[in-house]
Amino acid sequence: MPEIEVIPNGHVTTPKGFRAGAVCASMYASGPKAGALDLALLYSERPCSAAAVFTQNLVKGAPVILSQERMAAGRVRAVIANSGCSNSLNGPGGYDDARLMTELAASHAGLAAEEVAVASTGVTGVRMPMDKIKAGIARIVARPEGGHDFAVAIMTTDTRPKEIAVRVRTAAGSYTIGGCAKGSGMIHPDMATMLAYATTDADVEPGLLRTLHRQVADETINMVSIDGDTSCSDTFLALANGAAGLARIEAGRPEADGFRQGLLAVSMHLARELARDGEGAGRLMEVAVTGAASVEDARRIARTITTSPLVKTAVAGCDPNWGRILVAAGRAGGRLVEAKTTLKLQGRTLLARGASQPFVEAEMRAKLDAAEVLIELDLGLGDASATAWGCDLTTDYVHINADYTT
Amino acid sequence: MPEIEVIPNGHVTTPKGFRAGAVCASMYASGPKAGALDLALLYSERPCSAAAVFTQNLVKGAPVILSQERMAAGRVRAVIANSGCSNSLNGPGGYDDARLMTELAASHAGLAAEEVAVASTGVTGVRMPMDKIKAGIARIVARPEGGHDFAVAIMTTDTRPKEIAVRVRTAAGSYTIGGCAKGSGMIHPDMATMLAYATTDADVEPGLLRTLHRQVADETINMVSIDGDTSCSDTFLALANGAAGLARIEAGRPEADGFRQGLLAVSMHLARELARDGEGAGRLMEVAVTGAASVEDARRIARTITTSPLVKTAVAGCDPNWGRILVAAGRAGGRLVEAKTTLKLQGRTLLARGASQPFVEAEMRAKLDAAEVLIELDLGLGDASATAWGCDLTTDYVHINADYTT
Repeated sequence: MPEIEVIPNGHVTTPKGFRAGAVCASMYASGPKAGALDLALLYSERPCSAAAVFTQNLVKGAPVILSQERMAAGRVRAVIANSGCSNSLNGPGGYDDARLMTELAASHAGLAAEEVAVASTGVTGVRMPMDKIKAGIARIVARPEGGHDFAVAIMTTDTRPKEIAVRVRTAAGSYTIGGCAKGSGMIHPDMATMLAYATTDADVEPGLLRTLHRQVADETINMVSIDGDTSCSDTFLALANGAAGLARIEAGRPEADGFRQGLLAVSMHLARELARDGEGAGRLMEVAVTGAASVEDARRIARTITTSPLVKTAVAGCDPNWGRILVAAGRAGGRLVEAKTTLKLQGRTLLARGASQPFVEAEMRAKLDAAEVLIELDLGLGDASATAWGCDLTTDYVHINADYTT
Repeated sequence: MPEIEVIPNGHVTTPKGFRAGAVCASMYASGPKAGALDLALLYSERPCSAAAVFTQNLVKGAPVILSQERMAAGRVRAVIANSGCSNSLNGPGGYDDARLMTELAASHAGLAAEEVAVASTGVTGVRMPMDKIKAGIARIVARPEGGHDFAVAIMTTDTRPKEIAVRVRTAAGSYTIGGCAKGSGMIHPDMATMLAYATTDADVEPGLLRTLHRQVADETINMVSIDGDTSCSDTFLALANGAAGLARIEAGRPEADGFRQGLLAVSMHLARELARDGEGAGRLMEVAVTGAASVEDARRIARTITTSPLVKTAVAGCDPNWGRILVAAGRAGGRLVEAKTTLKLQGRTLLARGASQPFVEAEMRAKLDAAEVLIELDLGLGDASATAWGCDLTTDYVHINADYTT
């Protein structure tokens, strides 16, 4: 098994052969992002394997539509990203703007436009200010140290950047995987957007990268929910450029599993940080479902619990109201038999194969007053499991989304 | 077509041949329901046709399990109902308590236990205080004027009872349909529960009653959402006793359509009132989807919009952030093509077949500052339509569900 070690202050350009840079393109006229980095470029110095997962929403932003086309062409090794405007719900004009952004970025970085994806997050239904974008791209200096600036530039109402890098040590040598993400939130009140990036200097065969990336996305980023609202811009992109100089990792080889574990560590970290920094969140909620009849059932039940307003408000209020958890599980659409179900909250068993267990309310309230709340549900039906991450629902969430005036 | 007229101050015993009564069984030790009516009986003086729709949650309260058995036996003409304890998640003991409640009520009212359904709403995982229930049932005086008390007794955190009666005038004579419901909320913080009842003195053939009741439930009560959390106690029961003395209404006859319209009027009223009085709600939100490829698509999209936290917070904040509505529609799972979609908010067109329409934000904010907010989405794909009702998401919802301590 490979050793996986977190690199202090690591980010998306910690892996070799990646560069990034960011500028303030003045996308925000006011609020905490005014004057902050809001336009950024990330690229590999050499051709890459690339894999991407996009929003399943039928309403897709122009950047998603264009990036899907670029992924299909198979040459992507860069992304131009901005906050402050999602360039969605803008019709064909929005698509033209997205394409022009990639052309400007490609020309600036000495790439072909077909090598550049684009990601935009912010207000919907407003055209991209292309004058600002054009002037901004011209000022970007992409450096091997620029990964942190990239993570900062894509933030909207995130309270902090989310980034990580890990070193994967194998018998054949070491390589690095970096990652960053932005979570849900906006300065302008708008839908949440999730953008995530993983980079590596391992050489990963493109088909294998796509397979592992999809698997890991389904286990991590796709198991995060802040409020159940998907965005028209959600994107998770992985780039593998081989700059570490090791042999290509191919399917069926032991190295493939090591790479999977490294990518999982990076993505899991980003998923947890996304949930912890959800809009208005006071606590991270981790829901681990075991004993399910199928992985699909386990995922459905875990996700439904993380999105239940009644569970989320109970977690906010340190309320050991475990019936809410069970009833949310019961509407998820996965198999569940009350008499076989065991529920633990913060490690304390409250329901054992359908029999409720006495507890001292004040003690449970004290246990729940924590930065992380762990809900463990064993269905007693099979061997499948899944974990989902979410956050509590506080009055701050409502304030952020109801009271912020444009 | 029949004439349908609302009867002032009508309720579930406005139709002939029904009786109801309620007492305070001291189910609540504190809070606004302490000392208020909390235990109630409703029954028909004569045998009935009966139809019921229960929660789809896999976690079902004992009263639901027992009432489903009673409905299958085909003789139900009464319900004993209480607030303050939902008698759910209590295992086999809870089922025994539910059965004993029906036996006590039957004995008190001179009915057979098989004729009595039971409905309980309130805290989960706590056994029913059967001493209070037994003493309470013995004190119930069921009267032809008791319908209003019944509606009051089943309330939890509802701010007002929801009730109505209509007179249906047909060529053959008049009959009456009454209804009442309780919405989401609790004194003890617990999951929302919806209970609804319809009574009529029309004589409706049992199979027809079941068909029409299911159709109407799907169009009205099942299109309400306060927070997306279904309950383990949800019940909608309809009783038709024929006391008006008119000929039996059977399938395929014009009278069947008249009865359907009357039942629809009663249920629609209850659905709207349930949504308007959702926990913490400041505004009723009505979402009308037209032009859908199928009724299922229309319902999915309408319901998803009413449950979207980002739409609900925008409605709370009078924010004309229409992108949130479209993006919620895009994740609903029904067919939608952005370029064919038209969206109106409070009667104002904001998106016309995919093209966004300019508006003055201050004007839209003023229009949205209303007791009822109407969202009309035309998908431009077919002829199917559906309407859903919900409410805004306010900080009061979070306070009610997070901060109320037991």
